[in-house]
Amino acid sequence: MTLEEKARQLVGTWAGHLEEFKDIDDVEKEVTEHNVGAVASFGWGGAMDMRLDEIVENVNRLQEAALSETRLGIPLLFNVDAVHGHAYVAEGTAFPNGLGAGATWDVDLIEQGASITATEVRRSGAHQNYSPTCDVARDPRWGRTFETFGESPYLCAKLAAAKVRGYQGDGIEDSSSVIATAKHFPAYSEPARGEDAAPVEVSEYLLRNVFLPSFLDVLDEDVESVMPCYNAVDGEPAHGSQRYLTELLRETLDFDGTVVSDWGGVKMLDEDHMITADHRDSVRQTRKAGLDIASVDAIEHADHLVSLVEDGEVAEAVVDDSVERVLEQKFRLGLFEDPFVDPNEARDVVGADAHREASLDVARDAMTLLKNDALLPLDEDSDVLVAGPNADNVVHQLGGWSVPDPEGTDVVTIREGIEAATSGNVVYEQGSTMNDALDIDAAVEAAEDADIAVVAVGEPWYLHEFGPTVDTGTEPDEFPNRHTLHLPDAQRELVEAIHETGTPVVGVLITGRPLIVDWMAEHVPALLMAYYPGTMGGHAVAETLFGENDPSGRLPISIPKSEGHLQTRFNHFPHPTPIGQEEHPSSYDPLFEFGHGLSYTDFEYGNVSMAESTIGPHDTTTVRVPVENVGDRAGSDVVQVYVTDHASSRITPVRELRGFERVSLDSGQRVTVEIEVDAAELGRVDDNGVRQTEPGEYSVHVGNQTVGLTIETSYD
Amino acid sequence: MTLEEKARQLVGTWAGHLEEFKDIDDVEKEVTEHNVGAVASFGWGGAMDMRLDEIVENVNRLQEAALSETRLGIPLLFNVDAVHGHAYVAEGTAFPNGLGAGATWDVDLIEQGASITATEVRRSGAHQNYSPTCDVARDPRWGRTFETFGESPYLCAKLAAAKVRGYQGDGIEDSSSVIATAKHFPAYSEPARGEDAAPVEVSEYLLRNVFLPSFLDVLDEDVESVMPCYNAVDGEPAHGSQRYLTELLRETLDFDGTVVSDWGGVKMLDEDHMITADHRDSVRQTRKAGLDIASVDAIEHADHLVSLVEDGEVAEAVVDDSVERVLEQKFRLGLFEDPFVDPNEARDVVGADAHREASLDVARDAMTLLKNDALLPLDEDSDVLVAGPNADNVVHQLGGWSVPDPEGTDVVTIREGIEAATSGNVVYEQGSTMNDALDIDAAVEAAEDADIAVVAVGEPWYLHEFGPTVDTGTEPDEFPNRHTLHLPDAQRELVEAIHETGTPVVGVLITGRPLIVDWMAEHVPALLMAYYPGTMGGHAVAETLFGENDPSGRLPISIPKSEGHLQTRFNHFPHPTPIGQEEHPSSYDPLFEFGHGLSYTDFEYGNVSMAESTIGPHDTTTVRVPVENVGDRAGSDVVQVYVTDHASSRITPVRELRGFERVSLDSGQRVTVEIEVDAAELGRVDDNGVRQTEPGEYSVHVGNQTVGLTIETSYD
Repeated sequence: MTLEEKARQLVGTWAGHLEEFKDIDDVEKEVTEHNVGAVASFGWGGAMDMRLDEIVENVNRLQEAALSETRLGIPLLFNVDAVHGHAYVAEGTAFPNGLGAGATWDVDLIEQGASITATEVRRSGAHQNYSPTCDVARDPRWGRTFETFGESPYLCAKLAAAKVRGYQGDGIEDSSSVIATAKHFPAYSEPARGEDAAPVEVSEYLLRNVFLPSFLDVLDEDVESVMPCYNAVDGEPAHGSQRYLTELLRETLDFDGTVVSDWGGVKMLDEDHMITADHRDSVRQTRKAGLDIASVDAIEHADHLVSLVEDGEVAEAVVDDSVERVLEQKFRLGLFEDPFVDPNEARDVVGADAHREASLDVARDAMTLLKNDALLPLDEDSDVLVAGPNADNVVHQLGGWSVPDPEGTDVVTIREGIEAATSGNVVYEQGSTMNDALDIDAAVEAAEDADIAVVAVGEPWYLHEFGPTVDTGTEPDEFPNRHTLHLPDAQRELVEAIHETGTPVVGVLITGRPLIVDWMAEHVPALLMAYYPGTMGGHAVAETLFGENDPSGRLPISIPKSEGHLQTRFNHFPHPTPIGQEEHPSSYDPLFEFGHGLSYTDFEYGNVSMAESTIGPHDTTTVRVPVENVGDRAGSDVVQVYVTDHASSRITPVRELRGFERVSLDSGQRVTVEIEVDAAELGRVDDNGVRQTEPGEYSVHVGNQTVGLTIETSYD
Repeated sequence: MTLEEKARQLVGTWAGHLEEFKDIDDVEKEVTEHNVGAVASFGWGGAMDMRLDEIVENVNRLQEAALSETRLGIPLLFNVDAVHGHAYVAEGTAFPNGLGAGATWDVDLIEQGASITATEVRRSGAHQNYSPTCDVARDPRWGRTFETFGESPYLCAKLAAAKVRGYQGDGIEDSSSVIATAKHFPAYSEPARGEDAAPVEVSEYLLRNVFLPSFLDVLDEDVESVMPCYNAVDGEPAHGSQRYLTELLRETLDFDGTVVSDWGGVKMLDEDHMITADHRDSVRQTRKAGLDIASVDAIEHADHLVSLVEDGEVAEAVVDDSVERVLEQKFRLGLFEDPFVDPNEARDVVGADAHREASLDVARDAMTLLKNDALLPLDEDSDVLVAGPNADNVVHQLGGWSVPDPEGTDVVTIREGIEAATSGNVVYEQGSTMNDALDIDAAVEAAEDADIAVVAVGEPWYLHEFGPTVDTGTEPDEFPNRHTLHLPDAQRELVEAIHETGTPVVGVLITGRPLIVDWMAEHVPALLMAYYPGTMGGHAVAETLFGENDPSGRLPISIPKSEGHLQTRFNHFPHPTPIGQEEHPSSYDPLFEFGHGLSYTDFEYGNVSMAESTIGPHDTTTVRVPVENVGDRAGSDVVQVYVTDHASSRITPVRELRGFERVSLDSGQRVTVEIEVDAAELGRVDDNGVRQTEPGEYSVHVGNQTVGLTIETSYD
C-alpha cells in the first residue's frame, strides 16, 4: 500500500447533510478516486438515505465501486448511529432510548435488543455501530441525558456491557454482529452548565470512579472500538489527548481496538478548543494522541496525514499501526469475502415482527409509575380523552437518534395504543404543541365527557443541545433548553385546565430527561414516566394504564425538585456540616428518588441475609432476600442492593448501587432472590485502572433493611 | 519541654458556644492545668465576649495565668475571625464584606482596611486573624460566596495579597501586625450543589488555575499561616491530606509558616468524611498530613497526639517541627516580652473615627449601580419612603462574620443615611421581614406621598449555610438557602406593590450573593448593589443615591438569569457546538455582567496601545488607554484589561481579567491610564506551582477595543 492508500483507510466520509451536502455520486467519487475507507451513507441524523431500499442499493453500489474501481479493491466499512435500535431507518425497530432502557434494570433484555439491532444494522449494510454510550448522567440540563442509562455508574456499566455483548455476539466474524463503539471516552456527561461539549473539569477521583467504570466493563467484553468525547477533560480535549487515548486507554487499560473520532472531533481542536493552529496541526495532534479513524474529515484529513508523514511530523509506523487495526477488523467482518447485502433479506429482517415484539418488551419493562392515587389501572371500558403534544406524535415518541420524519415508519402512538386497549370511547384533542397552546377549551370540553384524561406531555425529538430547529420546530431559547427542566407554560396550562374539570388526569411523561413536574406530582392522581418508549411505545403505555402490564420500571435517575437543587444524586458523598446538622437541608431531596417506581401489586421482603458476611477483597458473596407478592395480581419488582463503605482512605458515596435483580411473581408467590455482590466492585479504581477494595466494614442495604459485610485484608 | 507540653502548644481552645459552652474559668483551667497554647475567647461567632472591655480584661487574665501559673510560662496566642474588620466586637469597625471589597477593585484601599483591622485586633489582644479568604466564587448558591472577592481568580489574588500586606505590615514583629491566615487551602468554593463543605471535585487543571493563584500571590507576600478547607478535594479531605498540606503546600509551594485547622476540621475526618476510624486516628492522619495547630480540639487532640508519639505512630520530630513554628511566631509577635493589652488604648483604637471613615471610603467605592433610568442621583430635598427588611437593620447590613446583635454597635443604616442626606421628609415603613409580609398597605400609602421610594431588599446575616437559625431568624428551608437565588415572595410583593403606586422605586440590594432580581431589573428605574456595606454603609448608600458619591463599584461576580443558568461566569472556556453555533444558546448570558457598574458621568476611552506588543514570557508590558470624563460631573471608573490566549496546548478561558486600574476624573479631565500586564501571569500553573506562559498570539481587550500581544519563545 502506498502511504496515500494507507492514510485513506483511516478516514471516513458521509452522504447527506453535514457541513455541506454530499450525494452518493460524490461519495462514489471519494471511493474510486481517493480510496476512502469508511462511509456513513445512512443511519445518522443528516444521512441521505433513511429508507431501506435506497440504503441497500447505495451500500452495494459503493462496495462495488470500492472493489472494482480501486487499485487494491479494499471493501468499505459503513458506520451508523443505531444507538437505540436501527432508528435512523424508517422501517427499523426503535427501542426505548437510553434512559428508558436503564429503567428496565434488565441486563438480558437489553442485550437481546442490542443483538436485534446488530442484525438489522448488518443486514442493511453497516458494520460499525457508534454505540453504546458509557456516559453516566450527571446533569439533567445536558441534552444528551436521554442517551445514558442514568446516574448510577454501576447500572450504566452493566447495561453498556450488555449492549456490547448484544452488538458483538460471539465476535464480529459472525455475520449478524457489528463493531460496538464505546463512547464517549473518558468523560463527556458532566459539562459545565450542562452545555453540550463544554469542558468536563472533574477530579481524577471522579473520573476514575464515576466515568471509567462503564468503560472498564465494556473493555472486559472486548469492545472493538472506542470514541473519544468532543470536550476537554482536565484542560485537554480528548481527541487530541495522548494522556487519555494512549496512556490511559491503550497502555493502562490495555485496549487494542480502533479509536474512531466523534465525527468532526478532529477539526474542533483548532476551530473550537483552540489548542492547535489549524486542521493540519489538529491531524498531527490526534494522530500523536492515538486516533485511528477520522469519521468524517475524509480526504482533507488523509492529505494532511500524508504530508505530516512526509515531513517527518508523524511516524509512518503510527499510520501502519492504525491501518493494521482497521484492515484487521474488515477482515474479521468478512468484508474481503463478501461486502454486499441482500435487499430481500434486509426487508425481511429490518423491522421484523419479532423485533417489534422485543422492543415492546423493553418498553413494557421501562414503564415507571411515579404516582398512583388508586386511579390505575383503568377499567377496560373507560371513555378516555387523549391529549397533549406527545400523545400522537411519532417523532416525539421516538426521540433523538431516530428518523426526524414519520414517513415510512410504523410506530404505535399512545393514542393508538389507548384506542386498542379500551372498549370505551376515545377522543383525541391535542390541546397544545410543545410550547404553544392550541384549543385548550376543546380539550376541556372533551375531558368533561370522559371518565379519564390521559395527557401526554414532555419533550420533543432533539439531539445534543435540543436541536436542530429544522427537526424540532423549537428555537434554541424555547423549551427544551438547558436552563429549565420545568414544562413550558402551554403544557402546564393544558394539564391544569383539564385537571380543573374534575375528570381524573393521568400524566404521561414522554421525555428524555427528568422534568420538574412538581405541580403534577402534587395535583394529578397518576403519573407515568414513559421516557422515549420506541416503536411500540403506545402499546406499552396503554397496556400499563389498563393493567395488562404491571409497571415495573424503576427510575434510573433522580427527578429533582428545582434547577437550584441540581445536582440531585442518590450517590453523593458525605461531608461536614460546619454549623450543625440541624441547620443543614438534606443533600438528597428529590421529587422522586433514584430506584423509585410503583407496582399494581405489593411486595414484601423477608429478612435479608448474606451467604458470607466476611469475605476477601477478591471474593464474592450473595445477598439473599425472600420476596413475596402479597397483592392480588401478578407483578414485577426490581430488588436493589446498595452498599456503604464505613471508613476508607478517601471519601466514598453515602450509598452506591452494587447489585440488582428483576423478579416477576404471581399473586401469593414467594421466591428468594439471590444477588451476587463482588467485593472487587466495591473498591476504588486506582491509577492502573484496577479496582482496589479496602478491608473494613461495609453496610449492605436492601429495601429498608441493612446488614453488615466485612472485607478482610487480602492474602495475596 | 515535655512531650505533653509540646503537644499542648499545638492546640487551641475557646470560650463561648461551640459543641458545648465554656466560660473563661473553664479556659483558664485549660491554660493553667493543661498548658493549652492558643485561645479564641472573642472575635468569632459563638464567642463569649463580644464587648471590648470584657474582651481585654479576659485576654489579660488568661495571659497572666499562662505566664504565672504554668511551668514554662509560655504566653497564649489568641486568634479571631476578623474577616471584614474587627466585626465580632460590637465596638469594632466593620468593613464591607468580601464581595463588597471585591467591587471596589481597589488594592490600596483594601490593604489600608486590613491594616486598620490588624491594629484593632492586636490592641484588643489577638494575634492571628483567620483571614483572608483566597476562595474564588464559583457557585452563588454557596453560603460563603459573600466572603469571596468574586469570580475572577486574578481579582481575588490581588485583593487577598493586599489583605495579607495590610494584616502583616512589615512583619509580625510590628506591634500593629497580626498573623494572616490564607484560607481555605487548596479549594473550598465549588462544593457540590453549592452545599457548604461538600466535596470540591474539580480537575487538577482547575485546581491549579482557578483555585491556586490566590494562594500563590499570598505566599509571595509571606503569609504566616494557611488553613485547609473542610471539604475533600479529589476524594481527600484537605485536613488529612499529605498530598495537599505537605507535598503541594510545603514542598512544591515552599510554605514555611503554620498550618492551622479550620476549627473542628480534625474530628470531621472520622465524624463526617469517614476516612478515619476515630478521633485519635484523625489526629494521626492530620499530623501525618502536615497540620500544626488544631484550633479548637484542645486537650483531647493533644492527649491523642502524646499517645500517638508514645506508640510510635507519629514521630516526635513531627511534633517538634510544629512546636518550633508556633513558638517562633509567638517570639516574633513579641509575646514573650509583653502579651498584655492596655484597655484604654483598646478603647481609643477599636472603632476609632478614622477607622470608620476608612470603612466608609471602602463602602463608597463598592457601590455598584446596576441600572439607572435617569432617576439617580436624587434631588437633595426629595421626600423619601424608606422600606424593606434591610433598610434599617444593623445585623443584616453587617452580614455574617459580624456581631449577630446590634447591642453596643454604632452602625449607620440606610434609613439613617437617607435621613442625613435629604432635606425632604423621610418616612420609614418596613413592609416586610426577610420572608414575611408586614404592613404592605402602609408602605404603599407612604409611597404615594413620597417623591421616591428606596426599597432595601436582599439577604440577612448568615454563616456557612444560611444559619444559624438562632441568629438569622430564618429556618433552613426558608430564604436564603442554596436552592434559590430569587427574592422571597414577601419582598417581591413589597417591591411590586410600591412600584404600582407610580412612585419611582430605587431598589437597594443588601446581599452577600448575586440574587436573581430579574423583575426589578426590568421594572424599577434604578437598582443599586450595596453588598453588606459595613459600619458606615447607610451613609455610603445615601451619598450614592443623592449624588455625593459617584457609584464606581463594578460587579466582581456575574448576576445570573436563573438558577438553571448556573454557572454563569465571564471566564468560561470555549468549546465545540456539535450541532452548530446558531443552535447554541450563549455560554455566558447573565442578567448583569462581571465588571458591570454605571457611573453618573460618562467616560470615553481613546485608542488602546501597548508599550511593547511583543515580549518574552517573563517580561511585562504596559497597556495604555486615554480615559476622558466627558460628562458634566466628577466620577470614577475602573479600567479593566482582559486577555485571550489564541492557541495553547490546553484550553484557556474565552477571556480572563489580567489587569485593572481605578481612575477618578473631574468633568472634562483626561488621563492616560497605564496598566501593567505581566506575561508570566498569562500562563498556566504547572505541577511545580509555577506559571508557564506559552509563546504565541494573545488578544488584549479594554472596553470594546482589542489589541494584539505576541509572546515570544523564552530565551532562558
